[in-house]
Amino acid sequence: MSSAPTRRLNINNINPHVKAAKYAVRGELAVKSEEFRAKLRRGDTDLPFKEVISANIGNPQQLDQKPITFIRQVLSLLENPALLQHEDVLLNQLGYKADVLERARTLLSQVGSVGAYSASDGVPQIRQSVAEFLERRDGFPADWQDIYMSAGASSGVNTLLHIICANEKSGVLIPIPQYPLYTASLAVLNATCVPYLLDESKNWGTDLETIKTAYAKAKSEGVDVRAIVIINPGNPTGASLPEEDIRAVIEFAQQEKLVIMADEVYQTNVFVGEFISFKKVLRQLQKENPGKFDGVELASLHSVSKGMVGECGHRGGYFELVGFDSEVQAEIYKFVSIMLCAPVIGQCLVELMVNPPKQGQPSYELYQQEYDNIYNGLKKRATALHEAFKQMEGVECGEPQGSMYLFPAITLPPKAAEAAAKEGRTPDEFYCMRLLEATGICVVPGSGFGQKEGTLHFRTTFLAPGTEWVERMVKFHQDFMEKYR
Amino acid sequence: MSSAPTRRLNINNINPHVKAAKYAVRGELAVKSEEFRAKLRRGDTDLPFKEVISANIGNPQQLDQKPITFIRQVLSLLENPALLQHEDVLLNQLGYKADVLERARTLLSQVGSVGAYSASDGVPQIRQSVAEFLERRDGFPADWQDIYMSAGASSGVNTLLHIICANEKSGVLIPIPQYPLYTASLAVLNATCVPYLLDESKNWGTDLETIKTAYAKAKSEGVDVRAIVIINPGNPTGASLPEEDIRAVIEFAQQEKLVIMADEVYQTNVFVGEFISFKKVLRQLQKENPGKFDGVELASLHSVSKGMVGECGHRGGYFELVGFDSEVQAEIYKFVSIMLCAPVIGQCLVELMVNPPKQGQPSYELYQQEYDNIYNGLKKRATALHEAFKQMEGVECGEPQGSMYLFPAITLPPKAAEAAAKEGRTPDEFYCMRLLEATGICVVPGSGFGQKEGTLHFRTTFLAPGTEWVERMVKFHQDFMEKYR
Repeated sequence: MSSAPTRRLNINNINPHVKAAKYAVRGELAVKSEEFRAKLRRGDTDLPFKEVISANIGNPQQLDQKPITFIRQVLSLLENPALLQHEDVLLNQLGYKADVLERARTLLSQVGSVGAYSASDGVPQIRQSVAEFLERRDGFPADWQDIYMSAGASSGVNTLLHIICANEKSGVLIPIPQYPLYTASLAVLNATCVPYLLDESKNWGTDLETIKTAYAKAKSEGVDVRAIVIINPGNPTGASLPEEDIRAVIEFAQQEKLVIMADEVYQTNVFVGEFISFKKVLRQLQKENPGKFDGVELASLHSVSKGMVGECGHRGGYFELVGFDSEVQAEIYKFVSIMLCAPVIGQCLVELMVNPPKQGQPSYELYQQEYDNIYNGLKKRATALHEAFKQMEGVECGEPQGSMYLFPAITLPPKAAEAAAKEGRTPDEFYCMRLLEATGICVVPGSGFGQKEGTLHFRTTFLAPGTEWVERMVKFHQDFMEKYR
Repeated sequence: MSSAPTRRLNINNINPHVKAAKYAVRGELAVKSEEFRAKLRRGDTDLPFKEVISANIGNPQQLDQKPITFIRQVLSLLENPALLQHEDVLLNQLGYKADVLERARTLLSQVGSVGAYSASDGVPQIRQSVAEFLERRDGFPADWQDIYMSAGASSGVNTLLHIICANEKSGVLIPIPQYPLYTASLAVLNATCVPYLLDESKNWGTDLETIKTAYAKAKSEGVDVRAIVIINPGNPTGASLPEEDIRAVIEFAQQEKLVIMADEVYQTNVFVGEFISFKKVLRQLQKENPGKFDGVELASLHSVSKGMVGECGHRGGYFELVGFDSEVQAEIYKFVSIMLCAPVIGQCLVELMVNPPKQGQPSYELYQQEYDNIYNGLKKRATALHEAFKQMEGVECGEPQGSMYLFPAITLPPKAAEAAAKEGRTPDEFYCMRLLEATGICVVPGSGFGQKEGTLHFRTTFLAPGTEWVERMVKFHQDFMEKYR
């Protein structure tokens, strides 16, 4: 018998930067939750719960959220344009409205076939439609040639960080806690993460002094800090930034010549106040202070995955560049061209998101009703979950403001920390693992996003329907606290 | 007046590895061809042609190729499952067959909603379906857990090279000429391209001695050569490798412990002989030589973009890993999870590609007819183009064997080389630019793929319909040769 030959690639010789990357949202807990789900599907009855609740990821259509009818009707026609030859059947028997057919025809005239590659930066007319949306949203002009279609916002972040980071000394200011796409991408690129803490005491807002300190420290250590990332509304924090925070960040970025990366994918998931874009505030500052802010470079990202659209699986998104050098933009074009183009059906979905049916159009009423139902449902669930957290011992959580998440702080008994250490886990990981095993509810420990030393959190979406799972969580928490008290 | 403030990012301080990457398929010529297209659309009449022929990229549905009805009918139901409530209308008025409805129902039961994220490595049942296809194709078992769904093959290549390349000393053997995705990705990763020439005199086959020499040279220069890339059928060459070439490459990879990356996206675009997969030959070698080939690591890639499916815009694909270490596979999973998942509708398209209607099923006949029409059309166009090349002075081109391209060698007069040098172009770039300006036909110069020193080529697809554009090309060539003789 020959012994198994050793392989060329093993865990010790592959790319160390990939190894160094961490991505907890789909890590050990998520994998275990899928094992549980498979077990339940097989009919196993030895688990103490009957369903797995994936509250670890903002994946609305995996849970309760239904796709918006207008969007999916148009997409069905884009996939099978032959249906457009049966206008009568579509209108009179299948519930399609005239504006659905019209939109499909317009998009088809722009893309040709959704099975053809588009231009690498996206279909020109779709980029134009995004620019018009941005003008309506912000009240300032937008240039379609500065819009780049991407496969979700993640791919846009990947592109931008690839351009910004020149070597291991290149640093990017990242909020803590953060969505781990940022730290993972910087790890893969072997660039430097410059963390700055968000202020939990102020509803997870940005604190300029903290940012300045983090920046100064990194600079003194020889880091070439080039950009600052802001996630607004916040992930995992659920914060919705007030205008003064945005102003302060832009002013700081102008002073220190930092590129601003504004991750604004939750811009319609706002429950308190209203969303204010970085672009709008930048343009206002430019108006108020002629010349001073002209050199500010801003990249702002959006996606079809979140909001009331919630079409994660389609991988659609875009980013807008403001104030970028044209030679740099040419390099961005070349970089995205290596992967050819973003999914064309996803690009069409972006168009439908930014240009929904207007009042008076046949699809408007149903669209608005579905949109409002989703919005109100999310708000209601956020509030219900928040109420439950208020009742849980040692759990502190600010009022839900935006995004799809709550990020409560938890205080656990010392015995829990000891038990966690025995398993080689942090206390929050330990808590989340026990929660999953006892209830089937999968959340992500705060350590997966970063948190202030000495604090513990977890992130949960509030997408799951019903209140039964919330009750299970409350019950688990009581038992856990009793056990380790 | 304030002077324009300088920006943080400029062409001299962004990521130098992105700058170093070259991707000619979508480079200057492609951009210029789009400008011409826009001009024609505006009604400008000052160009010496009436249409632009994009022969620079294998984008079938941008040209003449119609999507396959079965595929697009299923996709339309996946996008709008509400249609399934109108079974009667679908079957009796819209031409949908029962197996279309059944497949859509099955896929929906597997993915839930195409708007939801799937598992990061893909929908388990779709991976299972791919594994079954591979078993049928090769006559050897395949494990669904070794199948990773990707956003086209490009994204799979990006993933694999990210894992394989540990630092700038990591080398990958790349065929020359090659599809520039490989050199571009290695440039971005700052890893080392180890070029080996394909043998034009043997229909662009692999020559083992050449590979050995390239390998030895790189090794002697301190390069840690880790993998070898083979593109079969070839891009840009159009070659279809005989089994003995494949055997020789696997034996060499076994000896020198090289990971094999088999880019097999053109596996159904074969006009001479039949496609033989690396997996099949590897399994045969393992059977014939117990133990000896057990350690060989093979990654083989496929895509929905090419073949008769031709659905580039949907960005669907997969790769199969054979013989990989499980810890390495876990890192691959983590890496792909950072971008969440491949487009779910593209994953469904992969399923439809690998599991088409079977004989006896209601959609079979039309499917087969459409498939054969596309295949025969491509073969006919390849032959017609090849015949034209035979008549062109100084143009040499082997018989079309596979893929979507011809890659003729061209011999140009010295005066053309001088004129090219004056423009700062290589002679093949100069030739292709003049061709575009004179005829609207966009092809890619051989220098974009790499070519043996002292030779000149260009790559053209044979996807465009009709023969009028071929005549334009012949005429241009005559004039060009006259002018620079």
